[in-house]
Amino acid sequence: MRAVHSFLVPGIPPLGDTVTLPADEAAHASRVLRLTAGAVVGLFDGRGGACTAVIASTNRSGSEVTVRVDGPRDAAREPRVAVTVVHAVLKGDKMDDVVRDAVMMGAAAIQPIVTARSETSLAAVARGQRVDRWRRIAVASTKQCGRAVVPAVFDARALDDDTAWLGGPHTPNPRLLLVEPGTALPARTPREVAEPPAGAASIMVGPEGGWTPEELDALVPVTVPMTLGHRTLRADRAGTVALAALQAVWSDQ
Amino acid sequence: MRAVHSFLVPGIPPLGDTVTLPADEAAHASRVLRLTAGAVVGLFDGRGGACTAVIASTNRSGSEVTVRVDGPRDAAREPRVAVTVVHAVLKGDKMDDVVRDAVMMGAAAIQPIVTARSETSLAAVARGQRVDRWRRIAVASTKQCGRAVVPAVFDARALDDDTAWLGGPHTPNPRLLLVEPGTALPARTPREVAEPPAGAASIMVGPEGGWTPEELDALVPVTVPMTLGHRTLRADRAGTVALAALQAVWSDQ
Repeated sequence: MRAVHSFLVPGIPPLGDTVTLPADEAAHASRVLRLTAGAVVGLFDGRGGACTAVIASTNRSGSEVTVRVDGPRDAAREPRVAVTVVHAVLKGDKMDDVVRDAVMMGAAAIQPIVTARSETSLAAVARGQRVDRWRRIAVASTKQCGRAVVPAVFDARALDDDTAWLGGPHTPNPRLLLVEPGTALPARTPREVAEPPAGAASIMVGPEGGWTPEELDALVPVTVPMTLGHRTLRADRAGTVALAALQAVWSDQ
Repeated sequence: MRAVHSFLVPGIPPLGDTVTLPADEAAHASRVLRLTAGAVVGLFDGRGGACTAVIASTNRSGSEVTVRVDGPRDAAREPRVAVTVVHAVLKGDKMDDVVRDAVMMGAAAIQPIVTARSETSLAAVARGQRVDRWRRIAVASTKQCGRAVVPAVFDARALDDDTAWLGGPHTPNPRLLLVEPGTALPARTPREVAEPPAGAASIMVGPEGGWTPEELDALVPVTVPMTLGHRTLRADRAGTVALAALQAVWSDQ
């Protein structure tokens, strides 16, 4: 059985021991959800550990909540293939949904990128503290979908001529580059992408306006172009569709 | 090449002939997009016909726009399997996105249903003229994704004890009933659903609170329960994930 509400703690103590919820989780439990002593909750450590617990005490202001570990809990199983979603920052607050949905779809990590046609800049992303916001959304989505692993949201970076960083550990191979319907590139369908034996992959999703020809020139040699079919998909749905398609093909839901 | 803007006309005349755009399409072309004589556009008839055209004339007020058929146009190919999305009406305006995304994913039709846990009623759906709204959204999404077929949005209906209507032409077999992770029902994964030889299928998606036990009792005998994996998906994304997964498995993108 899944506890109705779950809370992120840095570490789960042994059965019968108590732990104090972090301040924001305590405030959520006591002030928003109005949970009191005796309520059954779930705990997860963000790295795969999960348990059920019972609220042992709350102080009057709701700033301090202690919970006692009660028993084991099955969190949602993680996919076999750890997929990093490398996603161009979209307009407005669309990245909020992108991050939320990528977590729900089991993404292992999210790497926001600023591309030539992203209508924003790295400076604007930093000024708006948007990566912090996406990290909070990742935690909230982890709870909603029942995972016990909080995917990392990496600091945003620019996609420029230097694609050497794509060889780094944040963007594992194969790097599947989503391209538009009707592309002249030799693009694979999800059915033509075998499950990576190394258990990791990246999906790269461009902004509303797509990749520029220069970006494609730089990316194609270090990626595998992939098409999701004949219809033009909205940029804020393409990552979800790609994950759903690949996981279905790989029987990795 | 795809024309940048396309317009829905009831019928496409022969090459070289002109046709007058319907009033709402004329207003969109001239007042919103500010297109004038000579602009290249696309036309589609909503049933699969498509062509390129050139604006021949617009009147001063923008209420009348005539276009001349110019040449052939390849619209996005329709999926082999015509999938009807039978979808519980969700809270707020979430159905707007559900309809838009189902069209983008190539759905053949959308059947809105009011279930026990839909937080609305058939009367409220009618009073709000919501089906009309969803039909307009279906047209807009058809244009955006490059299809030439506008999926039907059927009148909303109640999901009650009488499931006989499920045997009708609006909900073709197999009817794939999306069920929650951890269900006790013997549910198939998308990989376990073969492409229907008859070229049609239905996907049934419940509301935020899921199906009631009574609904499951009535539905299971006439459907094929299907699970999308171990994580709890948002109700407003489950249909998209299901379509993406099945189309990938069927190589029908």
